[in-house]
Amino acid sequence: MIAEVLATGDEIRSGALIDTNSAYISEKIEELGIKITRHNCVGDDEKELISILLELAERADIIIVTGGLGPTLDDLSREAAAQAAGVPLKLDTKALKKIERFFVSKQKSMPESNIRQARFPKGATILENPIGTAPGFSLIIGRGTFFFLPGVPTEMRKMLSEQVVPRIRQKLKEPYYYKTENISTFGLGESALEEKLREFPILFPDIKLGFRAGFPEVQIKLYQKNSDEAALVKEQEEATNWIKEKLGHKIVSLTGQPMAAVVGDLLLQQSATLAVAESCTGGLIADWLTDRPGSSDYFLLSAVTYANAAKQEVLGVEPTLLEKWGAVHEETAKAMATGVKKLGNATYAIATTGIAGPAGGSLEKPVGTVCIALAGPAKVESRRYFFPFGKRRLNKKIFAAQALNLLRLELLRELKKNHNR
Amino acid sequence: MIAEVLATGDEIRSGALIDTNSAYISEKIEELGIKITRHNCVGDDEKELISILLELAERADIIIVTGGLGPTLDDLSREAAAQAAGVPLKLDTKALKKIERFFVSKQKSMPESNIRQARFPKGATILENPIGTAPGFSLIIGRGTFFFLPGVPTEMRKMLSEQVVPRIRQKLKEPYYYKTENISTFGLGESALEEKLREFPILFPDIKLGFRAGFPEVQIKLYQKNSDEAALVKEQEEATNWIKEKLGHKIVSLTGQPMAAVVGDLLLQQSATLAVAESCTGGLIADWLTDRPGSSDYFLLSAVTYANAAKQEVLGVEPTLLEKWGAVHEETAKAMATGVKKLGNATYAIATTGIAGPAGGSLEKPVGTVCIALAGPAKVESRRYFFPFGKRRLNKKIFAAQALNLLRLELLRELKKNHNR
Repeated sequence: MIAEVLATGDEIRSGALIDTNSAYISEKIEELGIKITRHNCVGDDEKELISILLELAERADIIIVTGGLGPTLDDLSREAAAQAAGVPLKLDTKALKKIERFFVSKQKSMPESNIRQARFPKGATILENPIGTAPGFSLIIGRGTFFFLPGVPTEMRKMLSEQVVPRIRQKLKEPYYYKTENISTFGLGESALEEKLREFPILFPDIKLGFRAGFPEVQIKLYQKNSDEAALVKEQEEATNWIKEKLGHKIVSLTGQPMAAVVGDLLLQQSATLAVAESCTGGLIADWLTDRPGSSDYFLLSAVTYANAAKQEVLGVEPTLLEKWGAVHEETAKAMATGVKKLGNATYAIATTGIAGPAGGSLEKPVGTVCIALAGPAKVESRRYFFPFGKRRLNKKIFAAQALNLLRLELLRELKKNHNR
Repeated sequence: MIAEVLATGDEIRSGALIDTNSAYISEKIEELGIKITRHNCVGDDEKELISILLELAERADIIIVTGGLGPTLDDLSREAAAQAAGVPLKLDTKALKKIERFFVSKQKSMPESNIRQARFPKGATILENPIGTAPGFSLIIGRGTFFFLPGVPTEMRKMLSEQVVPRIRQKLKEPYYYKTENISTFGLGESALEEKLREFPILFPDIKLGFRAGFPEVQIKLYQKNSDEAALVKEQEEATNWIKEKLGHKIVSLTGQPMAAVVGDLLLQQSATLAVAESCTGGLIADWLTDRPGSSDYFLLSAVTYANAAKQEVLGVEPTLLEKWGAVHEETAKAMATGVKKLGNATYAIATTGIAGPAGGSLEKPVGTVCIALAGPAKVESRRYFFPFGKRRLNKKIFAAQALNLLRLELLRELKKNHNR
């Protein structure tokens, strides 16, 4: 079975907007065991659109098209599909009523132009859009079954999983079961992970292994299809356990959760609270932590003390200490962590002070140097690290992730200790 | 002249990696006055690659291909190009020497496999890669001139501008001059901007106008080509002035700089410093501010006081005030701004407290409500806003941008006052 994707729209064609839909669709369709052969993109040009639809109708069995379903005149997918299939457009009164109801629910009146969204090629199956005005549709042209979806990613994703994936599953001859696992890791690059897991394809030949680098974390993705559901679950479990053994604490989570959310869970589990003191990470640790809903249950404060005076005033770092060691030093980081822990009356505190660059580096403390302190109920520890990534934004990210990772490992040790008691 | 792009590689085809190269190339080529008609993508499959190269050789005049130039066996662009052109591969000793020198400069020995990178289709022009091992090449197949570039974005971008763009310019019949302008705006959506500037295409028919939404800022892009350089500069200036008049302070910068950098410039200009108190924005304002190198010259601290106790302890917000008004209130925001301004001994302070969601909303203060206070040398002001974006991350961003925007407008007023004195 040959499958392709087609993104439409001048914004994507001209480069004003990056096409994220095609990657998303490819991943989801590949999870069904179907390989996407090509991505295609054309602009809002009726001739070009019809021409590529006809090519696809000859070349592929399943085609997923995004974009061109809006109410304006440059939304051409419905017209182009009808012309490529050689059928007229027909008003669907049921779809029109739904669009009208959508506007009523938003207490707005429907503009005349939205009527266009209820006209579909004759013979098309309408695909409902539960969160927007643009319904999609599916239509057979030549050898291809086409699924036309909106370009707005949230609408496209919902309709892909609810309307398209079940229909493609029905087309597959044997009933298959699918399982995907996302494992987030920190501390090893993609090639180092590949090296550590190099026996995987021999041990688990039925499971596809993929890596996705999302600096500074790397996601490992496992997926598998099998006609025997019990065998599938068992093999996936064995594979996950094997990876757990190989990677140990490099694994941040088995559910794909990012570092800050995992740290949040561990803090919640132990009814612990956290205070942060940030210099070089400039608020990024706090930003990551507070992206998680409910983070106010454990995250108390971050003192982003960029100026030395603020380190003294807010955190109580001694001026003599700053004079003796400078802002970037293990002792300064310790004093920052101790200071913010006391200030927030928190169970744990982390502190960062370093050189994100591009300026401020020296031979002794080059750009990429960071001192991180971790203060817990019983002790405070501090270490210096050097990261070779060079760029300011990358440095902020790796510093922040490393600080959260130290806390994560400490919380895991604590958890183990309590279990063993 | 018909131009297309082709991205190659299994990572992009399978969706593991999002293709940003095609959008970048499309923008750069469109700046030359050449419209990219289609984007294409295939995986690391020799048959598929040859087949699409032959299609492109019939359909397009200029084709820019990315990826497949690495040293491993799944890097197939050189082989596929040779086969599509019907020519053999030839070792280029000059290119091989350069690759060897690259490894010497990194104090490594060259792996055997890298020899592959010095074999090119007979008749190809080699395109130098100044920052990586993979040289590119250009080759004529059918009606098409193909440019093969590496997939690594930094290498591709450098080679596109240094090696490809000058060669395409030579192909254009008349010598043209080009000018691009990026204007960042805040406070109006894309359609509202389009509406405000609807007379633009009539007044400046030679300038192409584009919009790029990068929530919460929207970039306006102007570009133009002209055989007369003086006329080009003059018209672009007139167009920019016209837009300035239409949009006024909705324009954040005429150079595409983001809000936090513009605020930084204004603070520097006035030798002023800034302290921030963040509740609902959770460190995002500080993170944005500190992404700019040299921000330590004006940014002193941000107190990310998520817990009420931290608002009291760190910022000195009165418990009675919190009891009376709650955490999300104009008076609380005022007390936070006043507190952090005093703590940091800063010229200006901004404070945010609101409900980012998904939980915590009420009828009176729904998710999307934020109170922002601005404290300056003479006064402190506070206002409540409601934003209808719903999602937590979007709320954090719009709250942070709105707070920085209030400061930007105040700094502009101050600048004007000083000029008038």
